Amino acid sequence: MDERLREDEAVDDLQNGYFIIQKKNAFRYGVDAVLLSDFAEIKQKHRVVEFGTGTGIIPILIYARRKPKKIIAIEIQADMADMAARSMKLNRLEDVVEVRRMDLKEAPALLGKALYDCVVVNPPYVKKDCGINNPEETKAIARFEILCNLQDVVQSAKELLQPGGKLFMVHRTDRLVDIIYEMRNVGIEPKRIRFIHPSAGKRPNLLLVEGARGGNVELKFMDPLYIYDESGNFTEEIQRIYGRVK
Amino acid sequence: MDERLREDEAVDDLQNGYFIIQKKNAFRYGVDAVLLSDFAEIKQKHRVVEFGTGTGIIPILIYARRKPKKIIAIEIQADMADMAARSMKLNRLEDVVEVRRMDLKEAPALLGKALYDCVVVNPPYVKKDCGINNPEETKAIARFEILCNLQDVVQSAKELLQPGGKLFMVHRTDRLVDIIYEMRNVGIEPKRIRFIHPSAGKRPNLLLVEGARGGNVELKFMDPLYIYDESGNFTEEIQRIYGRVK
Repeated sequence: MDERLREDEAVDDLQNGYFIIQKKNAFRYGVDAVLLSDFAEIKQKHRVVEFGTGTGIIPILIYARRKPKKIIAIEIQADMADMAARSMKLNRLEDVVEVRRMDLKEAPALLGKALYDCVVVNPPYVKKDCGINNPEETKAIARFEILCNLQDVVQSAKELLQPGGKLFMVHRTDRLVDIIYEMRNVGIEPKRIRFIHPSAGKRPNLLLVEGARGGNVELKFMDPLYIYDESGNFTEEIQRIYGRVK
Repeated sequence: MDERLREDEAVDDLQNGYFIIQKKNAFRYGVDAVLLSDFAEIKQKHRVVEFGTGTGIIPILIYARRKPKKIIAIEIQADMADMAARSMKLNRLEDVVEVRRMDLKEAPALLGKALYDCVVVNPPYVKKDCGINNPEETKAIARFEILCNLQDVVQSAKELLQPGGKLFMVHRTDRLVDIIYEMRNVGIEPKRIRFIHPSAGKRPNLLLVEGARGGNVELKFMDPLYIYDESGNFTEEIQRIYGRVK
């Protein structure tokens, strides 16, 4: 592996002892990656698979806070997988965070079935048929369900997870029906849900959901999470999450 | 029909030109009936079926505001059906609001399939196995899934509705997964959802959902509805809804 930084890349300090390589003009990680990393209740003894790691931001944030035994971060796009692998190397995390170039649909066959405690995923949010301009673009693949859809995500997660193993996902609220339907359909029962609102009084636009493979029916709602307060600043909880994750 | 008031009953003025007969010590209608009546976008030309009308509060509130052509309000319990029918008579609504004693599972066979524009339901909220003390009691039948469950509700609704016809339901948030799963499963696609929170910052405990028979996949979230403001008073929106419904 050529570990040198490419010309269009920059190293950003995550302020938690870790660094991330990102493209200068694209793919800077968002609040959804931070919220998912905080929401996912991962323990030190856990073996984790992350789908579609992109820059690798989520496994770095999870490792920084939770120190799980192993995270296998898969990514279908070669350039992104390469960049994420270089970020792990930069952080000397390459032994605990293994970046593998792989289609998530093949993950159960390649990584082994029913072996993992947790699957974490920030999937493409938008259905394939909703106005894609450049389906070849790296960005489009991360955003639209071009190479995988929600059914593929939950099916692969189910196969990778041990009985009782957890799926942690962040998604857009307009996909709520698909999320719940597909999860229960493959046998991952939604157990905990949190809606994320831009601010109090506004409809939620993101949600965090935890499902358990083969779990019984018992859904817990968490208090809503607001991003901004009345003055347009990050709420105290968002500041706490950022402080905790990083 | 003996139209006289029973000893344990009282007539309450709904402040909208209509009255309701209620038991003195039980079954006084709640905020969920008011919110559902306001949420249900029923038009004058509509033919509506309401499941489990109880006292008949929902068809009275819907009629007062929307004046639909016809509401068939069904109720399985004889004493409740009788009381509701007397409330319609008292309000001279017996021609537009027909109270029928009926099991909702038999409604499609008895009322005709695919004939209705809307079904409205405030179903029993709690699963059968969750600690029922007196399964014979009128109150238990309204509260627990003793005589019907959610699957029965959506199945009967689907059969009664015309293609494109709407189901309007209020339910508890801890049943969200069941609601969404069962609706999509019978072919009623959830289209609009609103969460009801005791107050801003608190997790929602009720939800309003609109589904369309054979509708395409497209879910809209509404802004959250808060019952109480910071001072513990009804929010302005709740006051507006009460004013609008009654």
